[in-house]
Amino acid sequence: MLIVMDHRATKEQVDQIIAAVERMGLTAEPIPGSLRTAIGVLGNQGYVDDSTIRTLPGVRETIHVSKPYKMASRDFHPTASVIDIAGVKFGDGERPVIIAGPCSIETEEQMLAAAEQVKQGGGRMLRGGAFKPRTGPHSFQGLGIQGLKLLQQAGQAQNLPVVTEVMRIEQLDDVCKYADMLQIGARNMQNFDLLKEVGKTRHPVLLKRGMSATIEEFLAAAEYILAEGNPNIVLCERGIRTFEKTTRNTLDLSVVPLVRELSHLPIIVDPSHATGKRMLVPIMSKAALVAGAHGIMMEVHPNPALALCDGAQSLSGADFAELMGELNRLLEFLGYQG
Amino acid sequence: MLIVMDHRATKEQVDQIIAAVERMGLTAEPIPGSLRTAIGVLGNQGYVDDSTIRTLPGVRETIHVSKPYKMASRDFHPTASVIDIAGVKFGDGERPVIIAGPCSIETEEQMLAAAEQVKQGGGRMLRGGAFKPRTGPHSFQGLGIQGLKLLQQAGQAQNLPVVTEVMRIEQLDDVCKYADMLQIGARNMQNFDLLKEVGKTRHPVLLKRGMSATIEEFLAAAEYILAEGNPNIVLCERGIRTFEKTTRNTLDLSVVPLVRELSHLPIIVDPSHATGKRMLVPIMSKAALVAGAHGIMMEVHPNPALALCDGAQSLSGADFAELMGELNRLLEFLGYQG
Amino acid sequence: MLIVMDHRATKEQVDQIIAAVERMGLTAEPIPGSLRTAIGVLGNQGYVDDSTIRTLPGVRETIHVSKPYKMASRDFHPTASVIDIAGVKFGDGERPVIIAGPCSIETEEQMLAAAEQVKQGGGRMLRGGAFKPRTGPHSFQGLGIQGLKLLQQAGQAQNLPVVTEVMRIEQLDDVCKYADMLQIGARNMQNFDLLKEVGKTRHPVLLKRGMSATIEEFLAAAEYILAEGNPNIVLCERGIRTFEKTTRNTLDLSVVPLVRELSHLPIIVDPSHATGKRMLVPIMSKAALVAGAHGIMMEVHPNPALALCDGAQSLSGADFAELMGELNRLLEFLGYQG
Amino acid sequence: MLIVMDHRATKEQVDQIIAAVERMGLTAEPIPGSLRTAIGVLGNQGYVDDSTIRTLPGVRETIHVSKPYKMASRDFHPTASVIDIAGVKFGDGERPVIIAGPCSIETEEQMLAAAEQVKQGGGRMLRGGAFKPRTGPHSFQGLGIQGLKLLQQAGQAQNLPVVTEVMRIEQLDDVCKYADMLQIGARNMQNFDLLKEVGKTRHPVLLKRGMSATIEEFLAAAEYILAEGNPNIVLCERGIRTFEKTTRNTLDLSVVPLVRELSHLPIIVDPSHATGKRMLVPIMSKAALVAGAHGIMMEVHPNPALALCDGAQSLSGADFAELMGELNRLLEFLGYQG
Repeated sequence: MLIVMDHRATKEQVDQIIAAVERMGLTAEPIPGSLRTAIGVLGNQGYVDDSTIRTLPGVRETIHVSKPYKMASRDFHPTASVIDIAGVKFGDGERPVIIAGPCSIETEEQMLAAAEQVKQGGGRMLRGGAFKPRTGPHSFQGLGIQGLKLLQQAGQAQNLPVVTEVMRIEQLDDVCKYADMLQIGARNMQNFDLLKEVGKTRHPVLLKRGMSATIEEFLAAAEYILAEGNPNIVLCERGIRTFEKTTRNTLDLSVVPLVRELSHLPIIVDPSHATGKRMLVPIMSKAALVAGAHGIMMEVHPNPALALCDGAQSLSGADFAELMGELNRLLEFLGYQG
Repeated sequence: MLIVMDHRATKEQVDQIIAAVERMGLTAEPIPGSLRTAIGVLGNQGYVDDSTIRTLPGVRETIHVSKPYKMASRDFHPTASVIDIAGVKFGDGERPVIIAGPCSIETEEQMLAAAEQVKQGGGRMLRGGAFKPRTGPHSFQGLGIQGLKLLQQAGQAQNLPVVTEVMRIEQLDDVCKYADMLQIGARNMQNFDLLKEVGKTRHPVLLKRGMSATIEEFLAAAEYILAEGNPNIVLCERGIRTFEKTTRNTLDLSVVPLVRELSHLPIIVDPSHATGKRMLVPIMSKAALVAGAHGIMMEVHPNPALALCDGAQSLSGADFAELMGELNRLLEFLGYQG
Repeated sequence: MLIVMDHRATKEQVDQIIAAVERMGLTAEPIPGSLRTAIGVLGNQGYVDDSTIRTLPGVRETIHVSKPYKMASRDFHPTASVIDIAGVKFGDGERPVIIAGPCSIETEEQMLAAAEQVKQGGGRMLRGGAFKPRTGPHSFQGLGIQGLKLLQQAGQAQNLPVVTEVMRIEQLDDVCKYADMLQIGARNMQNFDLLKEVGKTRHPVLLKRGMSATIEEFLAAAEYILAEGNPNIVLCERGIRTFEKTTRNTLDLSVVPLVRELSHLPIIVDPSHATGKRMLVPIMSKAALVAGAHGIMMEVHPNPALALCDGAQSLSGADFAELMGELNRLLEFLGYQG
Repeated sequence: MLIVMDHRATKEQVDQIIAAVERMGLTAEPIPGSLRTAIGVLGNQGYVDDSTIRTLPGVRETIHVSKPYKMASRDFHPTASVIDIAGVKFGDGERPVIIAGPCSIETEEQMLAAAEQVKQGGGRMLRGGAFKPRTGPHSFQGLGIQGLKLLQQAGQAQNLPVVTEVMRIEQLDDVCKYADMLQIGARNMQNFDLLKEVGKTRHPVLLKRGMSATIEEFLAAAEYILAEGNPNIVLCERGIRTFEKTTRNTLDLSVVPLVRELSHLPIIVDPSHATGKRMLVPIMSKAALVAGAHGIMMEVHPNPALALCDGAQSLSGADFAELMGELNRLLEFLGYQG
């Protein structure tokens, strides 16, 4: 950490800061400049809590050099992690995984049809929501446990591992029972208690980036899960909130190579939620793979026009099959064997 | 809802949309324009789920006229709500309430001293965090139940109702037992399951705006609580996330008169978290009162330089007393009796 | 400046950085930490151009301590500036100035009526646009030189100094001839050539914050004008672009006390453009004065419903007179003599 | 346009709106709903100026269906435009063009070396800045006319058309004389007078998206140039400003397919400025091509570590040659002949 003093700070104020740093068990190194003094803080093993320092007289600002995550960092874990979900692997060197399925689980027929389309197209995991986060309480909220069973049944019918969102701690046991992978949604990325409980399970987890989360906060959220002992995390970029409203969110593809540099955890992309527009899903899926994504999650529905949720961003089975052909050709070009 | 057709849309496509709207039990009114056709949707009693419509061929976009909240709206509840927390009232016509106290509950001495300072200064409620949301897992996470007890004890010693954050559903019983008012933090504004459970309690709740929540989403979050039967909601603006980083967040004061126009629920302002800078708290508190806030929540700590969390934005007891004198003069000017 | 090295950086890389810093005529001070080395850069008289340093092997990031402005800073100019426009003064200790008038200059009658209303209400400067920045080319673009003459005439009729926007360098002579103060609009805040030419004139200038400009960029834009020798600058906050769309922009009132701390230049607030809603102008004007604004600029039109531009945010003459009564009472409360 | 009335609006208010719309020469179609009335506005040939309507009593909001651009729209110009710059073509069906060169023109040697590297690598246009927009006035501002001559000389030596930024109207003649294509920088995207003058020249122009410009504003800026008679426009996405600061800006790749849908103008991507990080340029260039970009503009410098500006995002000649090999293989995969 660097502590920048006001240019009017007195020597006494500088000495007071040095003493405060030393009380924290750290070392302070003053760096006198022509305009102001800065004080380097040394000896910390990670992020320094600067809240007491920032309040002392003469301090202009504090600048963090360490990050609020450590176990999620490449610095401490140089080897890329490969996460295995019932034989489907996410990570460097592994063929990117296509996860597909409807936004909401609606009926047995829908799920069996969706699973068949996903399998036929070459998808390797099945998704579907049983518990749905919706902006207002008057929208369809999902089928709950009954939905989990339908999801599991459809996945087993096609031998596809399944992933579904968990929204509250009490649902964890059921979701772990029926699903191969838990999803933490964007709105819960900083629901720290949920993260901790998921961290205690060791169940594979798909952690979506919050809609206004920085990369630093995203990796710090993963750190909550890692710190409880669960290393089985796949990250997911799903668009961030910006001033631009033509797309539902702004897909931040640069985060893919950045996360791969900063962290050892795999990262996939969800172009359906990021853009909110069906016509953008195929092209942004390809861009995401080229950017280095370890997988793509997209919405596929047997009949998008009848979907109870987010039909506008869902592909039909035929659309999906066509897209998968294109993605497979792209993956071959990128060096992955068929 | 208005459905805007592509300018190349055929008559068949328009007819198909009309049929789809009618299948939803609503009425469709085509509005042919010189460039494109729009279709008005009539007969809905609230927000229309447009996900199936948006997917149909020929549709360019759908535009919502209704909002995803209804019970939180002035349209349906023209009279302003006054929320009573153990005799302290928030709402139109009531003297704005100053809530103060430390960010984190740390020790008995700290809480008793803080409560005394709050009472002496003229604060009417005591705040303090027992469960703390922190970006990374390696920061201080709060004292938990023990903290709740210290908070209650300090509040009782000074006859101040207390408010504290609840982060997970399992904590609800305890927080209801020890605190007069629950706080839903910004990171949990769309933790819908928590909102629902809080809605079932009837316990007064302070709902903070999410850091990237629109006003519409903010009121829709309140709707979750209202829909479960709990009308005792006070909203809280605490800054939104923008590109500007000189302040921790950007305090959006315009939201105060806007919410008072759109909703019957009271709204207060938290300038400590909004700005992250102690020097801005007094002046922005005054601006918030002038903007029509029904209260202010701010951080006061007996010794800000030793605070375990957010010391940089906490006022000392002496600062608080001085500020309260100024706020009281301002309130008198605004027409509130001392 | 602080240079943060990668934790894998070698001693040779650190030495290479030190040599590079010294080639820039500056001093490098290595600060070895437990995880990584940082290098303090000393001896610079202002902002350091880090572009060559950032590219060297082993560098993780560079952190600026100095700001890209100096003449605009309180550090170098501790005394608050008071800017005098034909006897109307902006700055610390001066009664805040209300600038009012229509968005666009339309006709002689309109301007004479507006000026009379402004004068009657107690406004001290008259505004009106002769050159209008409009998002699309098919909207009304302003009356040009003819408008400038109408503005001057109306100002002289009521003995009010006038301010109007200049959009291109060729207009500068005319605008200086007819107007007492130039306005640089938000879209031109980083039109650096225009800033430089305005800097050469010594004519008073109202510099509006760009819609996505940081405070640092805002003050650096003022620095362009100051660096050419023109000290007569009044800053203007007019809202920033965020995800929230209920208001046209998000009024960032915290910028007022912050700019007063960081700079010696006066700052006013434009609630009309910031919110885009007439109903918010009165209340946000009051909040701005309480936040310390040295003035308010607002839109007043003899007949808002017939305004050719931005009628939705204009007050009528009667609205303005009523608001001025309220603002005067507030100013009296704040300690300004009538 | 749709006019949404307040739910308390009276029949008289609705009638007043209808009359106002008809005074504008348009047709009003009331759509009574169960909660409120909406009024469709018909007969407009483009964007409706709603400023007078929005102010009338009983109006809650106005919703635009038409866009503030027309000539830039696919609706009115269904065929994709191909823009030819001295034989280098941008547009559908044309091989994407790589534009490369240094951020700033510094010396004759630098430019000749850069041009040679660009040509050798397979770049088809040369870029370089003679007039530089810099946040603060104390940074290097470019060589001016002398730089233009060095750019032209270097381009001619390698038979590469050249593009350079124009910052003020007085520079237009010179820039047109020495450069094959003008660039309008992000900060000037809404410098409407500059757009108009560029529109009068017919010289090819590269229009960069403003850092907080919506897609609608971006296309409306192009409309300014088109409306003056210059159809030779290539758009350029260069990142938008968001809360995320790990990258300099957030590259919004979804804008590429969206612009290709909404407009007939070609669009290229500048990953150097979008990300600000050299390591991200290669991978985001590939993602941009896959997303459908008609070209890529990137910074190449013979010696990035000595660059006077933006060295951190420049590739060396060797980096560029390697990247071009990869891009050529990708373009072949995408169906472009070598």
